[in-house]
Amino acid sequence: MISSDERLARALLTRMAEPGDERLGRLISREGAEGALEVVRAGEAPAGPDRADLEKRFPAWRARLAEADPERLLAVCEERGGRLVCPGEAEWPSQLDDLASGRPYALWVCGDQDLRFGCLRSVALVGARAASPYGIHVAAEMAAELADSNWTVVSGGAYGIDAAAHRGVLSADGLTVAVFACGVDVTYPSDHAGLFTEIARSGLLVSELPPGTTPTRPRFLIRNRAIAALTRGTVVVEAAQRSGAISTARHARDLGRAVMAVPGPVTSPTSAGCHTLLREWAEVTCVTDASDVLDRVGLIGDDMAPERRGPVLDRDRLGPAARDVLEALPSRGGAGTARIAVTAGVDLDTALTCLGALAAGGFVERCAKGWKLRRNAAEP
Amino acid sequence: MISSDERLARALLTRMAEPGDERLGRLISREGAEGALEVVRAGEAPAGPDRADLEKRFPAWRARLAEADPERLLAVCEERGGRLVCPGEAEWPSQLDDLASGRPYALWVCGDQDLRFGCLRSVALVGARAASPYGIHVAAEMAAELADSNWTVVSGGAYGIDAAAHRGVLSADGLTVAVFACGVDVTYPSDHAGLFTEIARSGLLVSELPPGTTPTRPRFLIRNRAIAALTRGTVVVEAAQRSGAISTARHARDLGRAVMAVPGPVTSPTSAGCHTLLREWAEVTCVTDASDVLDRVGLIGDDMAPERRGPVLDRDRLGPAARDVLEALPSRGGAGTARIAVTAGVDLDTALTCLGALAAGGFVERCAKGWKLRRNAAEP
Repeated sequence: MISSDERLARALLTRMAEPGDERLGRLISREGAEGALEVVRAGEAPAGPDRADLEKRFPAWRARLAEADPERLLAVCEERGGRLVCPGEAEWPSQLDDLASGRPYALWVCGDQDLRFGCLRSVALVGARAASPYGIHVAAEMAAELADSNWTVVSGGAYGIDAAAHRGVLSADGLTVAVFACGVDVTYPSDHAGLFTEIARSGLLVSELPPGTTPTRPRFLIRNRAIAALTRGTVVVEAAQRSGAISTARHARDLGRAVMAVPGPVTSPTSAGCHTLLREWAEVTCVTDASDVLDRVGLIGDDMAPERRGPVLDRDRLGPAARDVLEALPSRGGAGTARIAVTAGVDLDTALTCLGALAAGGFVERCAKGWKLRRNAAEP
Repeated sequence: MISSDERLARALLTRMAEPGDERLGRLISREGAEGALEVVRAGEAPAGPDRADLEKRFPAWRARLAEADPERLLAVCEERGGRLVCPGEAEWPSQLDDLASGRPYALWVCGDQDLRFGCLRSVALVGARAASPYGIHVAAEMAAELADSNWTVVSGGAYGIDAAAHRGVLSADGLTVAVFACGVDVTYPSDHAGLFTEIARSGLLVSELPPGTTPTRPRFLIRNRAIAALTRGTVVVEAAQRSGAISTARHARDLGRAVMAVPGPVTSPTSAGCHTLLREWAEVTCVTDASDVLDRVGLIGDDMAPERRGPVLDRDRLGPAARDVLEALPSRGGAGTARIAVTAGVDLDTALTCLGALAAGGFVERCAKGWKLRRNAAEP
């Protein structure tokens, strides 16, 4: 754990500087978050190659600090169900440390899931805003299949491939993570208010920028490195020749993550960027569905092994009512307790008792719709 | 040049044995074509590891020899405007020697073009018989573009991608080569009678099998190695997971030729074989059009350089009538003398005189439609 002063300092840093400033990152490594703020306030950077460039930024940074109220930022975020996650805390995804001095100062997070745990097995699906119906279809299908295999999907919040990927995961009751180039409380694009509400309910909204911050073009580009770093690999589903998705792919490659591209018709300009990746980057794998993706990023044996999340009972040792209730759960997605009771042919009290026992035994878990099967848990 | 006895012997060998028999190939290397026939007739193979396997085939081979009349085969072929091309002759494409003992015994050829010269800069376009409209479109377009760059296209004679590739070349007045798994006088499939007539008029029909031979499945597969060996690279335009086109790609790879695949929608089963090639074969290049293909197979500088086919005059030194006639030629495809005369605004005699001079100067050449511009010839 880290001190509350360090948390306040990191909240302030996200307000003071643009994300990914490597000179500031090096200053934080050297002086700590609080120490870095003191240096900025004192107006004199330590001797070294970064000194002149850092000091050039101090006036702008101090102007922002003068207006910033980190306690209020934290309070606003908490009011909306959010929190700040800092390096050194249990929820910090340590894979972000691969960004070295470009590491986020901290992350603003909204949603009940654990960010670190949720991104352990995650893949980024990225691509064109002006996606084709083909790209939308492939992104949604691939995202749903990844969710069915208990993989988390990470993307941005844009129209097109980003939104299709999130919607695919939501349709499969999986875990989806949207990384914003604005505050987690800012709805951009505004048409996605409903989508972001749904993501926050079952997944996570994440940003390096504090609540209230609006997006800018450089923020989108710098955000892409965080998407690449959070995940084990990046899949470019559809992209024109010049596309932000290619920048995410470049970050993934530079970070040693898997880079994948989905092919499409050669007659489609929205697949041209994918084909260029496939032709010109030796590291890029051609993927056509989720199983191709998992072949590339899955650890050998990992996806076959059951996840351990507590004690697991043998299905044969369940009582007859519990077995009926277990059978009544849909094989994909979730169902409410009342529906499960009806399907199982038991009364509501019995259903609730059995579901509680089944949850304790690792067979089922709560979800937005009520209850769902826990995948890879108790099956042979 | 080779003796007429050797030609007769090679004609007989194409009748006697299935193409690509490596043991027979080794026997021919050792004994010569006539010597190999003598060995078969005498019934005793030379000592060595091939001996037992060779002698097992002698009865079947002798039965075929008893019925064969090589002079008649040659006469039948010549009647139909064909000829036999043997190793060691000027028209023999020496790249076939890369097949070593699997080299064709000889080739039966129909068409006015020179086989060796025509295949110096050639690419194979291969793919599914049950091609999609997308595959047909891409094959025809790519073939026409290759023809426009003075590259020869080689394919089989099947429905689907093969036919689309030939039609694309014909539409661009280019040189296309169909390699058959049956005699060059056998129309298989019979619907392609018109197509093969057109190919024979401006391109070439080629087979390892003598006139009158019908196709079999093994002949198709063994034919594929000849397509791969004739060309600088093989492009799989569309292919299902199990497809003859993949066998051509494998031969191309084993021969050190370029292997290329055209991507398509991941939802299309006829692109699945291409995607597998792209994903699993390190050597395969993703190509989306003819320029991608030429980037892969073209020698550096080669495609920029004008072809030298005789003296080339400076366009500025042409007389006004010749210049008008030159301007009257269509930029793509050919036109008849009468149409050229009308467009140029000169009488027919003047047009003919000018066209003759322009041909001598390397500006134009004869084609099926009359006259066409000679590409890369006299332009700066």
